[in-house]
Amino acid sequence: MTLERAGLDRGAQPVRITDVAALAGVSIGTASKALNGTGQLRESTRSRVKDAAEKLGFVGDARARALSSGRTYTVGMITTDSFGRFSIPVLLGAEDALSAGQMAVLLCDTRDDHVREAHYLRSLAARGVDGIIVTGRSADPRPPIDVSIPVVYAFTPSTDPADVSITLDDAAGSSAVAAHVLTLGRQRVAIVTGPARHQSAVRRVSGATAVLGSALVGEPLYGEWSERWGRQAVDVLARGSADVDAIVCGSDQIARGVCDRLRELGRSVPEDVAVTGFDDWDVMALASRPPLTTVDLRLEELGRVAGQALLDLIDGGSAASAAVTPSLVIRESTLGA
Amino acid sequence: MTLERAGLDRGAQPVRITDVAALAGVSIGTASKALNGTGQLRESTRSRVKDAAEKLGFVGDARARALSSGRTYTVGMITTDSFGRFSIPVLLGAEDALSAGQMAVLLCDTRDDHVREAHYLRSLAARGVDGIIVTGRSADPRPPIDVSIPVVYAFTPSTDPADVSITLDDAAGSSAVAAHVLTLGRQRVAIVTGPARHQSAVRRVSGATAVLGSALVGEPLYGEWSERWGRQAVDVLARGSADVDAIVCGSDQIARGVCDRLRELGRSVPEDVAVTGFDDWDVMALASRPPLTTVDLRLEELGRVAGQALLDLIDGGSAASAAVTPSLVIRESTLGA
Repeated sequence: MTLERAGLDRGAQPVRITDVAALAGVSIGTASKALNGTGQLRESTRSRVKDAAEKLGFVGDARARALSSGRTYTVGMITTDSFGRFSIPVLLGAEDALSAGQMAVLLCDTRDDHVREAHYLRSLAARGVDGIIVTGRSADPRPPIDVSIPVVYAFTPSTDPADVSITLDDAAGSSAVAAHVLTLGRQRVAIVTGPARHQSAVRRVSGATAVLGSALVGEPLYGEWSERWGRQAVDVLARGSADVDAIVCGSDQIARGVCDRLRELGRSVPEDVAVTGFDDWDVMALASRPPLTTVDLRLEELGRVAGQALLDLIDGGSAASAAVTPSLVIRESTLGA
Repeated sequence: MTLERAGLDRGAQPVRITDVAALAGVSIGTASKALNGTGQLRESTRSRVKDAAEKLGFVGDARARALSSGRTYTVGMITTDSFGRFSIPVLLGAEDALSAGQMAVLLCDTRDDHVREAHYLRSLAARGVDGIIVTGRSADPRPPIDVSIPVVYAFTPSTDPADVSITLDDAAGSSAVAAHVLTLGRQRVAIVTGPARHQSAVRRVSGATAVLGSALVGEPLYGEWSERWGRQAVDVLARGSADVDAIVCGSDQIARGVCDRLRELGRSVPEDVAVTGFDDWDVMALASRPPLTTVDLRLEELGRVAGQALLDLIDGGSAASAAVTPSLVIRESTLGA
């Protein structure tokens, strides 16, 4: 493929390295070295050439670059189940970091199908990708993929502690939200969350209970990740003896159901009962009446950290597992209008 | 890159075309022709070789294939704004069709930024992609991208009628839902929908009004795509003189708000008022009380049609613009429990 064929603009003449060299006032060889990051050049020369390339929109030929460098500047992104609410922001953040590193992202949606995953791994091998990011819908660990190129697990960690996994610090998020509730002076706090088989539910409970101490009323209530469970949990609490003045929920869906049921029972949020969510999922957190104080998972940041870790590994450097700390978002469900 | 380097399995010996030929009982030349779809071969021979390749997990080398065919078997997927609720299913459907055609999908999230879009177009050019799918959050047309390779617009059409755009037939969907409401015997039907500046809102109104005829009560009410607008619209209707027995809504969010407000006013759904949504967005349609009769947009199907159209164009065939017909989904908000 020639540079001519790389030009996508209809009728436009593609920019050649000759043009870049002419504008920068250097030889073609110098321009080439400056753009490829090779050779001994003064930094001022290198940046003059790069400015000229930028100004002219010079792109070179990625395939020629791939052949000369042994790299394809392409990364596979595999999700173990369909891209959804959690994996999409992770994907976008990773894509952001990787594209800043000039890597393109090949999308592989395995739809939770092992045959499909194996097919994608073969296809990525055939394309010679430089690395792979693995993500998914669940924060529970998954078995590692068996490849000999750099891999980073994002949101869904690998079961192998030797792998690089970038995860969410659920406990830190729920500690922050519990501390906020105590700061407001609430003293009888219930916890309503998702299924105990999900590590994210368990970690969110442990983060909150550690902070609440004796302010925690009764045992945490585990159920579905749903609005309906939130409504049912309010009825469960109403049948108990202790009157609660705050309910810390494991998700925004649960918290929205809690608010709806409290209102139906004539109890006002946050005056009678402060309510908190988790996820900062706008269609739940903002549509809730009142809008929810919640925890922003910062999944795009998690994706960016994973993308940068993969770039480091591909460049021959090292990378370590890390947990991204989510952040508290305060709204009317604890503070009032 | 040799075939050895294409093998990703740690320590596993990669499958060679020699192995495929041996298993199929043919010469290496015949195996190669069968796998590349070239030469004069009996169909039985071709399928025997393909079965053998499938059984052994033979992948060849995509880059070698790309160099020999002049194609990269790679497609760019550009979204004009962040991947979200509408573009994700389109993306997944397209990826499904394209991967069946052995194409990999390069993801380009332009975040509604023209500079970023231009950067991606240059990057896709440098990688020599065989075609591009353009999608986005809005069903309103966008200006075409200026490239000389096959392009298909999915969900978000091009303003140029000469381009291939696969869109959603909103009017057909709202006609179906209006006909369903009439079938139930409802005779005084109101329409509550999104902003009149959105073509999808306008098309959904026209599809419903054409069917409703004299059963339509008053003018369609245009507002936000939100639950809050649904709640407010019920109050607007309550102040009017005509008592409605059905409300056809432009989205599931609006319909959910309508149901909530009707319940708060002591009116039962569907006994007093039947309510319909649009989108079949599970977190709204299923969480609504009662669950919503609505319209499934079939966006994955739309993506598949777009992916297939792009494959046809890349193969040198023709493709035409088309509209995918959404389908009616009947639940308790019209039928009762």
